[in-house]
Amino acid sequence: MNLDLNTLRAEYEQYKSSGLKLDMSRGKPSTQQLDTMERLLTAVTTREECISENGVDCCNYGGLDGIDESKRLFASMLGLTMHEIIVGGNSSLNLMYDTIARAMSHGVVDGMKPWAKYDKVSFLCPVPGYDRHFAICEYFNINMINVPMNEDGPDMDIVEKLVAEDETIKGIWCVPKYSNPSGITYSDETVRRFARMKTAAKDFRVFWDNAYVWHDLTDHPDYLLEVLHEAKKCGNEDRFFIFASTSKISFPGAGISCIASSRANVQRILKELAIQTVGPDKLNQLRHARVFRTFDDIKAQMGVHLSLIKPKFELVRRVFTNELSGIPEVWWTNPNGGYFLALYTPKGKAKRVVALAAEAGLKLTPAGATHPYGYNPDDNIIRIAPTYPSLDELGKALPVLCCCVKLACAE
Amino acid sequence: MNLDLNTLRAEYEQYKSSGLKLDMSRGKPSTQQLDTMERLLTAVTTREECISENGVDCCNYGGLDGIDESKRLFASMLGLTMHEIIVGGNSSLNLMYDTIARAMSHGVVDGMKPWAKYDKVSFLCPVPGYDRHFAICEYFNINMINVPMNEDGPDMDIVEKLVAEDETIKGIWCVPKYSNPSGITYSDETVRRFARMKTAAKDFRVFWDNAYVWHDLTDHPDYLLEVLHEAKKCGNEDRFFIFASTSKISFPGAGISCIASSRANVQRILKELAIQTVGPDKLNQLRHARVFRTFDDIKAQMGVHLSLIKPKFELVRRVFTNELSGIPEVWWTNPNGGYFLALYTPKGKAKRVVALAAEAGLKLTPAGATHPYGYNPDDNIIRIAPTYPSLDELGKALPVLCCCVKLACAE
Repeated sequence: MNLDLNTLRAEYEQYKSSGLKLDMSRGKPSTQQLDTMERLLTAVTTREECISENGVDCCNYGGLDGIDESKRLFASMLGLTMHEIIVGGNSSLNLMYDTIARAMSHGVVDGMKPWAKYDKVSFLCPVPGYDRHFAICEYFNINMINVPMNEDGPDMDIVEKLVAEDETIKGIWCVPKYSNPSGITYSDETVRRFARMKTAAKDFRVFWDNAYVWHDLTDHPDYLLEVLHEAKKCGNEDRFFIFASTSKISFPGAGISCIASSRANVQRILKELAIQTVGPDKLNQLRHARVFRTFDDIKAQMGVHLSLIKPKFELVRRVFTNELSGIPEVWWTNPNGGYFLALYTPKGKAKRVVALAAEAGLKLTPAGATHPYGYNPDDNIIRIAPTYPSLDELGKALPVLCCCVKLACAE
Repeated sequence: MNLDLNTLRAEYEQYKSSGLKLDMSRGKPSTQQLDTMERLLTAVTTREECISENGVDCCNYGGLDGIDESKRLFASMLGLTMHEIIVGGNSSLNLMYDTIARAMSHGVVDGMKPWAKYDKVSFLCPVPGYDRHFAICEYFNINMINVPMNEDGPDMDIVEKLVAEDETIKGIWCVPKYSNPSGITYSDETVRRFARMKTAAKDFRVFWDNAYVWHDLTDHPDYLLEVLHEAKKCGNEDRFFIFASTSKISFPGAGISCIASSRANVQRILKELAIQTVGPDKLNQLRHARVFRTFDDIKAQMGVHLSLIKPKFELVRRVFTNELSGIPEVWWTNPNGGYFLALYTPKGKAKRVVALAAEAGLKLTPAGATHPYGYNPDDNIIRIAPTYPSLDELGKALPVLCCCVKLACAE
């Protein structure tokens, strides 16, 4: 592996002058992927078609929990029942934000204080993790505590110890399947430990962001144990707020989302939603339910996405293997699904790589974004989001990225 | 006017046994009205059509403030400029709730306390008013103070005095045009007094719910002075949060909404929205912008609605005049627009009328709903929402209602 500084500098300057301009900072589906969902645009085109299976006119007011068709769809996707589901609008992030906002102002357990009334509220944040989760905590002044991720999920010895001892810990962020950004899926044992662990705070909640529940990249996908069933066995079903969406199944900007939880939590949330809104956009829920009549329709669509995304992840691996193999401390994750992989650099080099890439016209996710407060003390992780660029663009961008990694290592 | 108790009781019993079943409790557009917007369902049917005028792919992520087309539409409807507008999802109530929720947790002025950190936060509530506004205050434990409505808006002598003296008063709810439920429109002088009045609280805000801005019921509609322009003249443009939606223009369940305010407030809100959501459903904004290319298209559609709604309001007035004229203390408002009129009963009779009607199969808005905490000390106002039933149904329901009023008066 040639890490001669002068050679790399010359190579880098050449890339810099080549006029590359590409944004790989977010996990966005490509235009081509969206094109495969065109039929959603004509799923409901007449007023007659606007009536749900229960006779609800989806154009008019009413219905806080969403229409039955869309509840059934999410229930089948998540392995839950309809009464454990509330279907919302186009942003599951908004559902997560709302859930935290309500917890802050009104708490999550009848008779207990709103979180904002405690002197200190803390969240466990498995790292590397998702910057938008951390941003919500930061906005609400929730103290974030890093927890390391292992190959089978967050380090549960640490999680169990902390939540058992520290009453200020009210929650934890989880992306249990194809975790953002490393692509790890929680093992059955990790899921079971979440379900049964003892928490000092009686109003402790797990924010289970199942964003990539069916977003496989291989024919041998990961399996995630359904957590609410496990929790019920331990009487802890109120502990879990589960989130999912069709953002990366249909349209990211115009999909539908859901929050799932115990019956008691669903009833509690619906009472609060009655204050908050006149209800979700039922018409868009109906469009989705008409296009995705069963879970099999979802799986078929995910197969289409897989065919478009898989070559991009394969290209990343091929180029990384060719260009970066053998550089000390440089390695990358190899997920079976999701939208990201994590590229590890030597300590103290990730920010430099991102800066070099930006200067060469390649925008990456900021290097600290994988950690609370945007601060990775090791400065060694870069989130790679290969889905949005075309294969051709990716083919041009990856050598630039690799050059930046090598140059940063050589410097 | 015959108010013989026995005759009325016999009449009432006859109505009760007639099997009427009608819900007039909410201000919902009729099915027929929704049918006139069928073209919205086919406004965007191909992927090519999903691109906004600025080249934004409305199916993908991005864009917190909404697409330019929809911002321009609301700007033209409200007499504002595009940079004073943020376009959201299908529920303007949700925008109002969010605005209060953020004010509670983070305040509305840089460097000032979140509202929740004050010992007491109060809102002025012109009565009769809108129950969902009051419900948001109650949820956040905001103390509500009744202010009487005059013919030209809230009693501004009282409003000015209270906000000048009482620092705990942080806001006021206003439906400035065709006010829910009385149909009053604020006079120019009322609007100007809102714009220039002095407030003890530096973080005082007016929640200006312009829900019925173009919802005329006559050919001689009311005129509402645009408040943000007036506020700018006094340097008070940060005082106003303006809300509007297409809920009663296109589809109540699947329309688009907006919040408008000063540039500074819009920038502040956008920073907070970046935490809250991945952005609104731009595709539905695009549908609306394609159907309503200019303000004239909105006006044309409102003319269609007028043609369907006007006969219903006329029928109400005709039946009320025939059946209720001359009963002491019974009168009703005669609005030039909006979705409601207010029926006044003798003091202490409104709840009884609503209960009698319910027993006879006619569901009305609860009698106290026009006041904070659901409590009208005079118990003398019933909100009448004539838009949802067909003319035929209305023709059957109104005599029942009038019988209930007369019976309650006779009792």
